[in-house]
Amino acid sequence: MTTYTVANLAERLDARIEGDPGRKITGVAPFESAGPEHLSFCETGSFRGDLPETNAGALLAPPALVLKKSQTTLLRVENPRLAFTQMVPLFHPTTLEEADIHPTAVIGHGAKIGKDVTLDPHTVVGKNVHIGAGTSIGACTVVAKGAQVGRDCQLGSSVYVDGNVHIGDRVVIQTGTRIGCEGFGYVPTPEGAAKMPQIGGCRIGDDVEIGANCTIDRGTLADTIIGARTKMDNLVHVGHNVTIGEDCIIVAQVGLAGSVRIEDAAALGGQVGVAGHITIGAGAQIAGQSGVIRNVPPGETQGGYPAQTQKKWLRTSAAAMRLPDIIRRLVRIENQLKEQLGSAGEQDVSEDTTD
Amino acid sequence: MTTYTVANLAERLDARIEGDPGRKITGVAPFESAGPEHLSFCETGSFRGDLPETNAGALLAPPALVLKKSQTTLLRVENPRLAFTQMVPLFHPTTLEEADIHPTAVIGHGAKIGKDVTLDPHTVVGKNVHIGAGTSIGACTVVAKGAQVGRDCQLGSSVYVDGNVHIGDRVVIQTGTRIGCEGFGYVPTPEGAAKMPQIGGCRIGDDVEIGANCTIDRGTLADTIIGARTKMDNLVHVGHNVTIGEDCIIVAQVGLAGSVRIEDAAALGGQVGVAGHITIGAGAQIAGQSGVIRNVPPGETQGGYPAQTQKKWLRTSAAAMRLPDIIRRLVRIENQLKEQLGSAGEQDVSEDTTD
Amino acid sequence: MTTYTVANLAERLDARIEGDPGRKITGVAPFESAGPEHLSFCETGSFRGDLPETNAGALLAPPALVLKKSQTTLLRVENPRLAFTQMVPLFHPTTLEEADIHPTAVIGHGAKIGKDVTLDPHTVVGKNVHIGAGTSIGACTVVAKGAQVGRDCQLGSSVYVDGNVHIGDRVVIQTGTRIGCEGFGYVPTPEGAAKMPQIGGCRIGDDVEIGANCTIDRGTLADTIIGARTKMDNLVHVGHNVTIGEDCIIVAQVGLAGSVRIEDAAALGGQVGVAGHITIGAGAQIAGQSGVIRNVPPGETQGGYPAQTQKKWLRTSAAAMRLPDIIRRLVRIENQLKEQLGSAGEQDVSEDTTD
Repeated sequence: MTTYTVANLAERLDARIEGDPGRKITGVAPFESAGPEHLSFCETGSFRGDLPETNAGALLAPPALVLKKSQTTLLRVENPRLAFTQMVPLFHPTTLEEADIHPTAVIGHGAKIGKDVTLDPHTVVGKNVHIGAGTSIGACTVVAKGAQVGRDCQLGSSVYVDGNVHIGDRVVIQTGTRIGCEGFGYVPTPEGAAKMPQIGGCRIGDDVEIGANCTIDRGTLADTIIGARTKMDNLVHVGHNVTIGEDCIIVAQVGLAGSVRIEDAAALGGQVGVAGHITIGAGAQIAGQSGVIRNVPPGETQGGYPAQTQKKWLRTSAAAMRLPDIIRRLVRIENQLKEQLGSAGEQDVSEDTTD
Repeated sequence: MTTYTVANLAERLDARIEGDPGRKITGVAPFESAGPEHLSFCETGSFRGDLPETNAGALLAPPALVLKKSQTTLLRVENPRLAFTQMVPLFHPTTLEEADIHPTAVIGHGAKIGKDVTLDPHTVVGKNVHIGAGTSIGACTVVAKGAQVGRDCQLGSSVYVDGNVHIGDRVVIQTGTRIGCEGFGYVPTPEGAAKMPQIGGCRIGDDVEIGANCTIDRGTLADTIIGARTKMDNLVHVGHNVTIGEDCIIVAQVGLAGSVRIEDAAALGGQVGVAGHITIGAGAQIAGQSGVIRNVPPGETQGGYPAQTQKKWLRTSAAAMRLPDIIRRLVRIENQLKEQLGSAGEQDVSEDTTD
Repeated sequence: MTTYTVANLAERLDARIEGDPGRKITGVAPFESAGPEHLSFCETGSFRGDLPETNAGALLAPPALVLKKSQTTLLRVENPRLAFTQMVPLFHPTTLEEADIHPTAVIGHGAKIGKDVTLDPHTVVGKNVHIGAGTSIGACTVVAKGAQVGRDCQLGSSVYVDGNVHIGDRVVIQTGTRIGCEGFGYVPTPEGAAKMPQIGGCRIGDDVEIGANCTIDRGTLADTIIGARTKMDNLVHVGHNVTIGEDCIIVAQVGLAGSVRIEDAAALGGQVGVAGHITIGAGAQIAGQSGVIRNVPPGETQGGYPAQTQKKWLRTSAAAMRLPDIIRRLVRIENQLKEQLGSAGEQDVSEDTTD
């Protein structure tokens, strides 16, 4: 069992210790369930009101945070969550399987397979595919004729990579995701929809991570592009000719229609939909379930349908909640005026009040 | 051809017969298309106005329901739909294929495969996996190293089960579903997003049923949990550290963000989105497409975005439909007051009326 | 390298040439990035304001459209986009792989495989399956016992086709799509949900195209039906007993609940949800993200939640944007009346104005 003293950990993090530096830590655990042998972490604002007690043997905590008296030893760091992500691998080292080409893997003529590549059972690597050194490919995954996959990538099981796709280095593609699907492009004709040929491809930048069961369409003539370090959650749809910048965050079940442009470091919440040919500016943030049908300026936070600035959105939503009250007050005013003016008014108030 | 008399069926259901007990039934069919040889069913409120004629030879009907004169023989039961589900297997017995490990299945060292387990072609069972007796696993499905699958489960084709997943007994997982995906957890840093290691697993309770192409993320440190007898439709996303109780109903394309808690017997309509760390109380019901961003008390029915109590939601929606009328009336009042007070008012009414 | 003169192309399209008929074209490209060797196209309204310059050697353009002076040779056609779809294959002929049954394909007893059928590696074709001539089936795809697949179909990789499914001719089913999943039908009982047996199938018409990672449930007793020439995008959910007509367009991430009826030539935008048993009339159009909970008459355009006629929807949305202003004006009127009447009114205005 891996064991570190609090002093060992503090040294790695350049953390200030409050408590017993010799205390032995053998694992990591969540704040609530951690025991005396565990390292855990907390953040300012993690909890409403007082921070509850924890039995964690050691706790990564921000400089200012005051804890109730407890047996825990504190390691003071600027960013406890980040520090925690750095400590977890000490106790859970990734067990590197020995690279291996399984005998059931099918490899086409002219495929170039780099050093230390893992091909799990029933993988299919088409003709003239290039797979960079250190890349591992999950079982039943299909990389079609001519595709390029970089170094140290991890493709899960049952993934599909189309032939006209170029994947960078250190890219993670989770199980069931489809890269380079045929885009949804038809031209209406009297005899029904005529298909627009989709002869473009996809380019996936370095260090991109894509969740499970996503669908990324290839471009019509040019390429669909996902910029370096962009992270995508599960069940996301990316239409043909979409361009996503670098360092973007795309949460689960987002749908991007054709030719959408997402600029660098933009963040889209879960289930957001973006209409065709829309641009979302650099650093913009879109609230979950929003529908974006107009371009979003860089840096702006928007929400709602149609998406508008957060300030307008929140004020409009708040006002909408008060609508029944508004109608009541409107009717009262109309009645006051009727009495005043002795005029019958033009509408049947009783009917208007039925909501 | 399987044949039962109405008397045979009535006996099984303890149903009261109205008509010919000797009538021969050889199959089941929907109300509209059933013929004299078919058993069908109807429910109070199945149809607006009079119940249409049916040619069904036998009809499961609730005690009170009055039918037009027809040749059909009635079997009176308390719950016709439930009775029908019990009769269907008589005419469509599930043909149990002989259990078989296909020669193309790949099985890792130390895997324990129970009695009468079926492994279809191209399945992959990792090292030290346990698969309980009577479980069948579809073609091209991958169960990763160390995973535990219970007894009498049915896993469809192209399913993925991650190594740190524990699946109970009699669990159904349909084709293309991914259990134990890596959760979407990143810590922003100046050099881009740092990944929070996801070392937890998933625990799927007994008798759970999960639809096709769903994605269930494993926990970050602890487990993602789906309680016994919960039923999940297709294309559902379950984020990391989510806890779903027992007997829940989750309809298609629902998205649950990280650390969401769904308590027992809650029901979520299609395309509902639930924000991170939200709790939905036991027995609560959420209308389709709602966006839940605040905790929902047990037993409450909510809808809309942001989700609110059904009563408020319906009144607010109804009022919203009347907004153009409200504006017209507001402008009329302003004009009346202007005349009265001879005051010019502060805004250009004509402009205000442009909607 | 394939080379055509502008005259060659014009002849195929019966187009009028403006410029050099002898100019040599070797490829197709988008308007913005096309070079002198490329054919491209533009449409009226493709661009706001003046049409930008293009370096395309030849440009398919509508009769009326006026371009800035440029070196490009014009081919005047009625429908440039359609003409372009017809020219692309000249420069990108689909390279027909030689039909081949890969040795790793598993084929059950009694399966009938037509002439020139391609079965990629690790495909699984169940007992008594029929596959029509010229159909190609992608790697790791599973066609279950008894299924019928027509002629000249293209099934992608990791597709699942259930046993009780009938697929027409020239059908395209992209990677990861599941046809004939078990529908989501349960009857509540004191002991938990009882499953309604799903013994129906699916019928997919000729020339249907279905995107990637979709889920199509089979019928409960009868069949789920998708009409000829209907096109479906990625990640679409189709519930059990749904009937979709001919020539429909279903955009990505749409969800259709059980027993929904979509009539011919209807079009649903991305992320639309349709409630159970709803009918959407022939030729109706539904805006993206709408929630349809009432029947939609033929030919109508609707949007919003609940979906309403486009006119009402747009007016209501516009009015909603003005709600904070409406409340301000309401409060001002109430104050005016209070002064007038010297009455205190019944509500605390200052409180009312807090939004």
